[in-house]
Amino acid sequence: MADQYARADEDNQSAEMPAIRWEEPPEGPVLVLLDQRRLPAEEVELVCTDASALVDAIRTLAVRGAPLLGIAGAYGVALAAARGFDVEEAAAALAGARPTAVNLAVGVRRAQAAYRAAVAGGGDRGQAAEATLAAARALHQEDAAASARMARHGLALLEELLPGGGHRVLTHCNTGALVSGGEGTAFAVALAAHRAGRLRRLWVDETRPLLQGARLTAYEAARNGMAYTLLTDNAAGSLFAAGEVDAVLIGADRIAADGSVANKVGSYPLAVLARYHHVPFIVVAPVTTVDPGTPDGASIEVEQRAGHEVTEVTAPRVPVAGAEAGGGIPVAPLGTQAYNPAFDVTPPELVTAIVTEEGVVSPVTADALAALCDRSRQVTI
Amino acid sequence: MADQYARADEDNQSAEMPAIRWEEPPEGPVLVLLDQRRLPAEEVELVCTDASALVDAIRTLAVRGAPLLGIAGAYGVALAAARGFDVEEAAAALAGARPTAVNLAVGVRRAQAAYRAAVAGGGDRGQAAEATLAAARALHQEDAAASARMARHGLALLEELLPGGGHRVLTHCNTGALVSGGEGTAFAVALAAHRAGRLRRLWVDETRPLLQGARLTAYEAARNGMAYTLLTDNAAGSLFAAGEVDAVLIGADRIAADGSVANKVGSYPLAVLARYHHVPFIVVAPVTTVDPGTPDGASIEVEQRAGHEVTEVTAPRVPVAGAEAGGGIPVAPLGTQAYNPAFDVTPPELVTAIVTEEGVVSPVTADALAALCDRSRQVTI
Repeated sequence: MADQYARADEDNQSAEMPAIRWEEPPEGPVLVLLDQRRLPAEEVELVCTDASALVDAIRTLAVRGAPLLGIAGAYGVALAAARGFDVEEAAAALAGARPTAVNLAVGVRRAQAAYRAAVAGGGDRGQAAEATLAAARALHQEDAAASARMARHGLALLEELLPGGGHRVLTHCNTGALVSGGEGTAFAVALAAHRAGRLRRLWVDETRPLLQGARLTAYEAARNGMAYTLLTDNAAGSLFAAGEVDAVLIGADRIAADGSVANKVGSYPLAVLARYHHVPFIVVAPVTTVDPGTPDGASIEVEQRAGHEVTEVTAPRVPVAGAEAGGGIPVAPLGTQAYNPAFDVTPPELVTAIVTEEGVVSPVTADALAALCDRSRQVTI
Repeated sequence: MADQYARADEDNQSAEMPAIRWEEPPEGPVLVLLDQRRLPAEEVELVCTDASALVDAIRTLAVRGAPLLGIAGAYGVALAAARGFDVEEAAAALAGARPTAVNLAVGVRRAQAAYRAAVAGGGDRGQAAEATLAAARALHQEDAAASARMARHGLALLEELLPGGGHRVLTHCNTGALVSGGEGTAFAVALAAHRAGRLRRLWVDETRPLLQGARLTAYEAARNGMAYTLLTDNAAGSLFAAGEVDAVLIGADRIAADGSVANKVGSYPLAVLARYHHVPFIVVAPVTTVDPGTPDGASIEVEQRAGHEVTEVTAPRVPVAGAEAGGGIPVAPLGTQAYNPAFDVTPPELVTAIVTEEGVVSPVTADALAALCDRSRQVTI
């Protein structure tokens, strides 16, 4: 049985409630997560006192989002070390909690390497635990710093493309503080524009089938006092037609060497609409998202997700009478087959710019991307 | 209290269950509706024994869809006449049951005119009732005949544009027998292709926010044994990109004199995707949908619907704990504002062809549309 408990948020109603944080109360260190399953209905913290509690939280999607999973994995290893559990066993369990989440395994390995190095260097248990925690904190801070740099570069790009401010920005899925150690990717740029007084409106695609836009991006926009409006994904077309969209800002799951962008399903139709209406389509992602081993869009295998996400509708934490296989309410006839790709691929010719923490690539070409990755590697080394 | 009752469908599991029919059991004439609120979960007939029961059914969306509402309204007047109620009073109540539904009022007036003419011509109560019913039946049959002609013209167009068959057709919203006296508009063309062995797959957009595609089009496709696959509206982009869509078939709410097509929100982005991928975008609608009084797309006022359709999710006939203002499950933060246009407008340059019962207009120009309307008027006179 995983050792975790829920804690209602009573003294922290500010916009500062982080998606993840390390705490050291007298009874021992804990990892505190904002339980994303309960958003936006409730703000409840999930307190994990050991790695298996965190594995459980990862499996049940209480914590999600590529960069945040990496940070959570690293802290999970640090928690095992600090509590005196078997670190190797905890690391293996954490890395396997969501096998397709590359960042999770990377974060776990980084903390694990710090632990092993400390032990190999003759450190005692306390020193090894401290080194592990330091590695997790470093990853967390690097991610936050990368968010801040992406936001700065993205804001400068918006000012260049759309002088005069008053931006009406359309975004898709959830790319803010809930998936990041900082303020996210595309959302962080919109937030920077808001703080600079340059954001007139954030158009939030609901993002079917899992409604991350309605549930999470709207929540983050509301908490930050941004002027935002929610829409069904298919309503974006008429916004473009009416001239109500000045730019599209999205994140990326993976960027191929040629600049093809894999991102949440629904991104590609926005790119086509943006092109048709001469609106900039801007991708915001850390350099680590660029995968030189994937030459082009055709090489990206598109994962098909379960059909019940489409044939049923679900909502956070609402007990439903007559729930079906996926725990939701059936909306289509029994036996209906669904096409449910996790993401789609936008070719580089439809991408106006890729914004990273190391700078902006525009126009998007294989050479420009490769140069950016080289620069980033030099900086890191 | 309206006099209506539900009747479970036990002896009619064929694909023939009509959306509306007139019956004359020994206890007196009734109008039998397929209760669309319960689809696809249950096939239940709603039996209306007077006009006020039908008004109730119209108001609560048990019966819906422009052409079908006109037919229902005409039968409602006939029901009042046959049962010896005040026909003028019934007609007024029916015409006002959904004030924005133009077809409803038109159908009611047509039956009412037949009643008045019979009375004015010296007919007794029975003769007047028969004349009223004959007018309703004529409207019903004309609509069914128009569906059949649209299907024939549409199928011929598909064969011309896509020789060789094996069509993979994408459709949006619900345009089949549930909204028509016959087999509908766009759906009728897909069904004709299916019967001719030329339909490889029907891609069904779920059609947020009200999910008419998932609930109703998938139901009609399943009943007719068509190979169909459901998708979220935003997943259509990757189908186009993969070359999996040979044609788009949609209906229309209104067509302006210049050929601009107002239809369910989400139609316009499909038109842009179709153009970008060189796929035919075909609109199927009766000639009465063309409104010569509306010069162009800009003259069409787009109705905004209630925000709760977007900020909450609903499903047919499922009692939900914690239901909100709209009776659904909240998925967005409280107070979230939504952009929820009922339809969007596709300009004529993106429409490959408009298929009507009187023939096909392609390319879509104001002159060609006007000529078609003139021809139709001559045929009708």
